[in-house]
Amino acid sequence: MAELTILKERVLRDGKCLAGGILKVDSFINHQLDPILMMEIGKHFARLFADTGFNKILTIEASGIAPAIAMGIATGFPVVFVKKKKPSTMSGALVSTVHSFTKGIDYTVSVSSEFLGKDDRVVIIDDFLANGNASRGMIDLVEQAGGSIAGMGFVIEKTFQEGGKWLRDNGYRVESLVRVASLDNCEIKLL
Amino acid sequence: MAELTILKERVLRDGKCLAGGILKVDSFINHQLDPILMMEIGKHFARLFADTGFNKILTIEASGIAPAIAMGIATGFPVVFVKKKKPSTMSGALVSTVHSFTKGIDYTVSVSSEFLGKDDRVVIIDDFLANGNASRGMIDLVEQAGGSIAGMGFVIEKTFQEGGKWLRDNGYRVESLVRVASLDNCEIKLL
Repeated sequence: MAELTILKERVLRDGKCLAGGILKVDSFINHQLDPILMMEIGKHFARLFADTGFNKILTIEASGIAPAIAMGIATGFPVVFVKKKKPSTMSGALVSTVHSFTKGIDYTVSVSSEFLGKDDRVVIIDDFLANGNASRGMIDLVEQAGGSIAGMGFVIEKTFQEGGKWLRDNGYRVESLVRVASLDNCEIKLL
Repeated sequence: MAELTILKERVLRDGKCLAGGILKVDSFINHQLDPILMMEIGKHFARLFADTGFNKILTIEASGIAPAIAMGIATGFPVVFVKKKKPSTMSGALVSTVHSFTKGIDYTVSVSSEFLGKDDRVVIIDDFLANGNASRGMIDLVEQAGGSIAGMGFVIEKTFQEGGKWLRDNGYRVESLVRVASLDNCEIKLL
């Protein structure tokens, strides 16, 4: 059972629904963070993926870092965060392109090949799964590195968008701690 | 004693010195993260500021998030991360401008006024203290919000740059876990 009950209750209590299918959880997940809840999220991801043989946690800046480091603290495995550009001081970078529907732009994501390689069995962690574009960028980076993907963990999945279906149809193990079925009429409906 | 011995040892062992006074710690601090070390950093900040009456931790995306959330996990106090632009969905944002010497540009930083206010007594956390410009941007945001600053904690301070002196001269309590005295000749010298 992937779901985390205390998180579902918190989303219903403190989440805010904006026009256009936007779920704001910025009072506890991705602007202000509740660190005790975040540690529970990290421990829950650790339990969910304990049987997958993973040895690295991959996420993307900025909102993925907190749940990823919490899972790292729970497991001891290193965390790597993908950057949303290619820093000038990064040598041997692996690069991919991600389309953001929210912002209507393409952006470059990158990770140093020093920290992602063929021996890495990766759990990909992010705060949201919606269209799945950031996830596909991270999958591309892991594949370029020759690593393998043990699974993908999301704090919140919007099941009315395409990302989860695409990932599962392509054989990835996806664990979402809260699944949002609908945000119609500014009402949060969970699965 | 602000210094954290295991961190000093790690910087000397795994830090890399690049031309132009750049210290790369991206194998354990700000690209790949060692979560066990990060939790020790968080616990150490918690001890250092335990007597200051703080009730909120403020940092800036992306590299400040991990040490800040680790301190949050150690203390239970909420963590807020300042964003490097003004998101379109952020209401009531407080805004400041920061100059980046590294990148040669000014950038806007912002935080929602929902999560930073007059009752907040803030510890500001970041990975690096160099020229102190990001810190001054965060101080500006706390002052705009009417909050107070309990102190400022940095994983690594470059004491040969101006930020630490400016902050201390202006009365802020600054705790740096590792102080780098020089990176001349691509050699890391700690205080």
